[in-house]
Amino acid sequence: MGEFELIRRFFQPLAGRSASSSLILGPGDDCAIQRVPDGRDLVFSVDTLVEGVHFPKAYPSDKLAWRALAAAASDLAAMGAEPVCFTLALTLPCADESWLSAFSRGLFQAAEEFGLALAGGDTTRGPLVVTLQVHGVVPKGQGLHRNGAKNGDLVCVSGCLGDAGAALEYLAEPDPTQDMQAVLQRYHQPLPRLALGQQLSGVASAAIDISDGLAADLEHILEASGVGASIRAEAIPLSPALVRLTGDQAVDYALRSGDDYELCVTLPPAGWQALPSDIRQQLSVIGSIEPEPGLRIQGWQGTADQHGFDHFRSMS
Amino acid sequence: MGEFELIRRFFQPLAGRSASSSLILGPGDDCAIQRVPDGRDLVFSVDTLVEGVHFPKAYPSDKLAWRALAAAASDLAAMGAEPVCFTLALTLPCADESWLSAFSRGLFQAAEEFGLALAGGDTTRGPLVVTLQVHGVVPKGQGLHRNGAKNGDLVCVSGCLGDAGAALEYLAEPDPTQDMQAVLQRYHQPLPRLALGQQLSGVASAAIDISDGLAADLEHILEASGVGASIRAEAIPLSPALVRLTGDQAVDYALRSGDDYELCVTLPPAGWQALPSDIRQQLSVIGSIEPEPGLRIQGWQGTADQHGFDHFRSMS
Repeated sequence: MGEFELIRRFFQPLAGRSASSSLILGPGDDCAIQRVPDGRDLVFSVDTLVEGVHFPKAYPSDKLAWRALAAAASDLAAMGAEPVCFTLALTLPCADESWLSAFSRGLFQAAEEFGLALAGGDTTRGPLVVTLQVHGVVPKGQGLHRNGAKNGDLVCVSGCLGDAGAALEYLAEPDPTQDMQAVLQRYHQPLPRLALGQQLSGVASAAIDISDGLAADLEHILEASGVGASIRAEAIPLSPALVRLTGDQAVDYALRSGDDYELCVTLPPAGWQALPSDIRQQLSVIGSIEPEPGLRIQGWQGTADQHGFDHFRSMS
Repeated sequence: MGEFELIRRFFQPLAGRSASSSLILGPGDDCAIQRVPDGRDLVFSVDTLVEGVHFPKAYPSDKLAWRALAAAASDLAAMGAEPVCFTLALTLPCADESWLSAFSRGLFQAAEEFGLALAGGDTTRGPLVVTLQVHGVVPKGQGLHRNGAKNGDLVCVSGCLGDAGAALEYLAEPDPTQDMQAVLQRYHQPLPRLALGQQLSGVASAAIDISDGLAADLEHILEASGVGASIRAEAIPLSPALVRLTGDQAVDYALRSGDDYELCVTLPPAGWQALPSDIRQQLSVIGSIEPEPGLRIQGWQGTADQHGFDHFRSMS
């Protein structure tokens, strides 16, 4: 199967089925063309997943496609952006039809779920690497940034944290319990907070998606904003399944492991009070911003490296 | 060296030095933000280069960076787009400082030459794979497409073809002659036709950049346009160096080998006549569009596969 045949069979149908009115020209020419409406800015982010680094060898390709698009789309959520389209750069050791068929299926399901149309891509032969770039739009000047956290702001997170990190322990489990299945679902099929991100646009003072663990990602907000924060370990939202599976370690998973793709945002107390209750219900207040730099975690005994996953940290 | 340290040292300076007024937010947040002016459409393309497939093992990283950005920028040229910015997804086996330093230098030189600002990226650990996505803008509805070639249009190409393909024979040459150096330069440091592409916007009926060889790329135009073409082998522009080095094979290199990143365009005879002479001087008329599908090459004895480089063609 040639490169063009491969694209025609597995990706062109996806492009047709997930078309967006903003996508003037999709795959098949030298470039794709996107119309950005007047009064909107383009926001975009690129994410790479490498076999053996970001996902295990022989990981099912439908799940891989979903996770890859979810990870990229989560960056749009963190900017408060409306999703539009994405490109796929796929490097593959061989053109295996069943692998490609499942990959294409998972990608289409995720694209439909997240509202992202396939705009173009590049397929090449090589080690298995998936790079996705997602495009969204925000009202001009309204994108959520990392650098706006102010003293006195509340620190909030969406959903429950730590599940996807704990799931790594159970990937090879032949007969997972119901609790294991619950956290595995969070790992295999994360749901980026796209609607919530847009609802917090113009309200949150800073935002980031939690891809490397709460501690590492909140620290990015603190550094970019030139402030510090104090959070309470007991306030960090944990799923009952995670607590039952990992006991006292549940908070460690939430602080240190990524892949949950929840949002961490800061906002002034008045902004929090003014939020509609259905949005507040998706968030937990876990602490507040303080002038003194650094992250302080009350009620947590951990002393080891608080940082999350860093793909180069172990290297010289 | 951690991932963030690596970005800070080798890529943040590049971002600062090549800033574009259209790039509202560059690297360092969850997404980058680009402002697309009213009356313009965004055009974008993604390209991947894999070690051992698109470039040899131990290929110098400054040249790799230039070639990767040139290959991607060439797609902007083929759309007649004005370059704006790009993202870099870089997968690396290790964070080697001298490799990264040269890569960053080559990338900056190319970015400055092509008018592209670094908007964001992702660095990960893995086999050496470089994925670049370039962004440009065109006046609304004015992007050059592949599908507009009409019966009677002239077929033109820019520059000379085949040099980069022939250069592959001399990559390991310890003491290259002047002619070898000339074709090697075309391979190591291709110059996408960005200005020419913009000048042909609104004039050419179809356009493509020659990345897979003239025969394969012109066939993309023919298929997309539902037409055929007849071209004359003797009219294909060849550099004196290529002719001296490869003799009768020079036309084969021009037809079959890619990496030259010249443009192939079609345009009505009246459009050709109306072009300013400085633009006509950059183009050679090599044939014309005909109703009968397929590509006919007059005065060429080649009978083997006329197609260019296809990364999956040899696979099952």
